[in-house]
Amino acid sequence: MDEIAADPSHPRYASLLMRHRLEAAAERGMLAGSAMIAHGRGEAFDYLLGERTTESAKQAARQALAVLQDAERPVLSVNGNVAALACDDMLRLADVLACPLEVNIFYRTPERMKALLSYINERKEVLGLEVAVLGDAPNATIPGLKGPRAACHREGILESDVILVPLEDGDRCQALVAMGKTVVVIDLNPLSRSAQQASITIVDELSRALNTMLDLAESEGVVPVDNAYDHAAVLDAGLAEMLSALKRA
Amino acid sequence: MDEIAADPSHPRYASLLMRHRLEAAAERGMLAGSAMIAHGRGEAFDYLLGERTTESAKQAARQALAVLQDAERPVLSVNGNVAALACDDMLRLADVLACPLEVNIFYRTPERMKALLSYINERKEVLGLEVAVLGDAPNATIPGLKGPRAACHREGILESDVILVPLEDGDRCQALVAMGKTVVVIDLNPLSRSAQQASITIVDELSRALNTMLDLAESEGVVPVDNAYDHAAVLDAGLAEMLSALKRA
Repeated sequence: MDEIAADPSHPRYASLLMRHRLEAAAERGMLAGSAMIAHGRGEAFDYLLGERTTESAKQAARQALAVLQDAERPVLSVNGNVAALACDDMLRLADVLACPLEVNIFYRTPERMKALLSYINERKEVLGLEVAVLGDAPNATIPGLKGPRAACHREGILESDVILVPLEDGDRCQALVAMGKTVVVIDLNPLSRSAQQASITIVDELSRALNTMLDLAESEGVVPVDNAYDHAAVLDAGLAEMLSALKRA
Repeated sequence: MDEIAADPSHPRYASLLMRHRLEAAAERGMLAGSAMIAHGRGEAFDYLLGERTTESAKQAARQALAVLQDAERPVLSVNGNVAALACDDMLRLADVLACPLEVNIFYRTPERMKALLSYINERKEVLGLEVAVLGDAPNATIPGLKGPRAACHREGILESDVILVPLEDGDRCQALVAMGKTVVVIDLNPLSRSAQQASITIVDELSRALNTMLDLAESEGVVPVDNAYDHAAVLDAGLAEMLSALKRA
């Protein structure tokens, strides 16, 4: 870990820490070839947000937590970048929700699946949590997707009613929405297909978004679902915050 | 090369071709660990520009070509991402300007320098150009920078009056400006320190910016320097184009 990233008082600490986590994950074989580029795109949008959790992101995170708590069969989907950047927070959220966490990746190979599952299970042991970690034995497919990327668990993603899919590909987000699920996305680009198509989109950096949800669950317990929640309006508010960041410059 | 990137009619052809070039360069050991993340950040800003060359970028490219043509000792600086993404265009521009091209990288190691120099010289042979390629035997340092990143050639960067440094780090850009040079930057982020500090900043994707200059040199020959060129105003115009892209969404 380089010297800047080891000093939490450095203004770029959080950003450098995330890069360090990605590098470590790449060494473990957890990431797809496109992982670093995707992360860089996120960094640019976070830069426009001022690297902070906006009011609209807080509102989206509150609703996301509420619908996950209110779900019959919630599930948290984890891909390579999510495992690299925020494995512990995803495990903690699965624990709070008493729901499974399913490894589900776009570029599925046995090697990457093994690397991801072994890392997540290692962290689960360290944290001492009882979370069910799925992904090792897919027995169903997501309709509308082709090849290995469609593979999922019946008792996980397939039969879930509410799913959290952070940093998700647009095609897969669309396929999940088409299945009738409530799809919660965490995506720094408010213009991405995933962000647009989801039921609820938190426009925020992954670990900040997860910590907003974890803090809320700790301080308020069960959060009521806001039946007047307006996905498009909250997204527009996120976009407006980026516009004002550009104007401030 | 994946199948989409092999089809020039694909709407994402240019973007996928650039990713492919980076992957190939990574395999040759030409890139720093941060290369892919930096590229991803650029992709996000290019997305906001609509992946096209704006009017303000054309204006900046025209002035950049003019000051390079007007220089006593112009030089083109090449780092890992620049060599990966646009080696041939940089060699062609050096040929048009009859100036040296200097490999100058932030994370300097003998292995990366060797990989870069061998690739550039290989492409120079293929293109049949007579360009002087420097970087192998630095004999001077850039004042204000520490360690290997300060190393440069006296007959190249040190004594140049006008320097093109595409995709440059903010500290290095600042050090070059402090030396009294006219510094031309190509950077997709109009808010970056490099973009702000440079004498002329082309807010455009690297190969598009270089091709704008090459086309101009071919069609117009020597381009006159615009003495009323306003760096800050052109940058503001680039920012305004991004704002309008966000508003269109």
